[in-house]
Amino acid sequence: MSGRLAVVGLGPGDARYLTPEAQAALGSADALFGYGPYLARVPARAGQARHASDNREEGARAKAALQCAADGASVAIVSGGDPGVFAMAAAVCEAIEAGPAAWRDLELSIVPGVTAMLAVAAKAGAPLGHDFCAISLSDNLKPWEVIEHRLDAAASGGFVIALYNPVSRARPKQLGVALARLARILPASTPVIFGRAIGRPDERINVTTLATADPASADMATLVIVGSPQTRVIERPGRPALVYTPRALGSPAC
Amino acid sequence: MSGRLAVVGLGPGDARYLTPEAQAALGSADALFGYGPYLARVPARAGQARHASDNREEGARAKAALQCAADGASVAIVSGGDPGVFAMAAAVCEAIEAGPAAWRDLELSIVPGVTAMLAVAAKAGAPLGHDFCAISLSDNLKPWEVIEHRLDAAASGGFVIALYNPVSRARPKQLGVALARLARILPASTPVIFGRAIGRPDERINVTTLATADPASADMATLVIVGSPQTRVIERPGRPALVYTPRALGSPAC
Repeated sequence: MSGRLAVVGLGPGDARYLTPEAQAALGSADALFGYGPYLARVPARAGQARHASDNREEGARAKAALQCAADGASVAIVSGGDPGVFAMAAAVCEAIEAGPAAWRDLELSIVPGVTAMLAVAAKAGAPLGHDFCAISLSDNLKPWEVIEHRLDAAASGGFVIALYNPVSRARPKQLGVALARLARILPASTPVIFGRAIGRPDERINVTTLATADPASADMATLVIVGSPQTRVIERPGRPALVYTPRALGSPAC
Repeated sequence: MSGRLAVVGLGPGDARYLTPEAQAALGSADALFGYGPYLARVPARAGQARHASDNREEGARAKAALQCAADGASVAIVSGGDPGVFAMAAAVCEAIEAGPAAWRDLELSIVPGVTAMLAVAAKAGAPLGHDFCAISLSDNLKPWEVIEHRLDAAASGGFVIALYNPVSRARPKQLGVALARLARILPASTPVIFGRAIGRPDERINVTTLATADPASADMATLVIVGSPQTRVIERPGRPALVYTPRALGSPAC
């Protein structure tokens, strides 16, 4: 007997971002695994087991969920945003590659979701309207020198840059160092967006520039978008400014 | 009297990817604007006007929708995937910046969706599990030299690369040239994923390598993901291979 495992993206922190596919996967699971605050977003259902774990236990969580599925259960791992972007889907694949042959035989589905950069971009306008990249600033799993090299490559290449995991309690300095490094390549006036807790009551969007961005205003729930030299800001009387990157290179197109 | 405009992401081609927020925005609109095949995915509703246009008329569509909203209507523009990724949100911002002051006064909302690279990645495993970038191969709005420079920067920087708009009838050669260029930097064994029409009956995922990828197998509905030197393939007897990029740089982590 062999079960199945779904790795489910919840989207940003509100049910209005939860796709019908994700809803169905959560509804049909016998057991849910996940970081506590993500699990808390899924309504309780009688007979459905819940296994909460810390956000730094991704490898152990993946293995426990795979073993539960291999024992015959229908299992879902929940992930904030999209499970494929700096989240649980890669951890599950790593565990499958290193684990027993039976884990390769499981029915595995990855259920995509709205990842944080898309939600933050939508609230600000269209900053990701042209070529862009996503970089995690966590140096828990890669050397900081690699991150610096990628920041340089992205800024020099004219990409808009979405920064995931900008800071944590154990890594308070990374965002400041990264912004200072980008400022060596990009104009001081480059728009920078701090987006926090989109879809939650404490949601906040702050539009600033590379010269004035305050790294201390970011926390673990923040995603930062740094514009390219093409990114523009439209002031709107009585409304928040719109930030966007034109589809055409150079001046705004019509 | 002033109306409102929502720019709505439908996600990939199936209702199971449509978020409740997008559903609500479509339901409350007096008028819908969009590329014909996207509009066709929205169930008809009595009293709701529909304005279909060609996919190369984004600027004109944005202006028409803004004017309709400025005349007092509740308007929605539909976009496949996410409207902020190579889609209508930037076109709307461009039109607002260049248009009459009244357009800045409209209530504007961008409704994010699951963009193609997330859906393709989910079907293949977790190829976007580490730093990645998204590049449009269309040189309609930017010089080809810029695209080449960005391909080089992305490959040299170790990013996984999602290629949007890989080919069109008017641009049949771009994908082949781009893959050949990437092959000068990346190993011949680098995994390449062709994902087509995810969520539709003719959905297709093909996993190959940089050495063997056939550009002719891509069409306008295809998204291509080129791995980084870290991207791995897990063979599964009787099931499709899983493609993923480990969270840690170098060897797979546990």
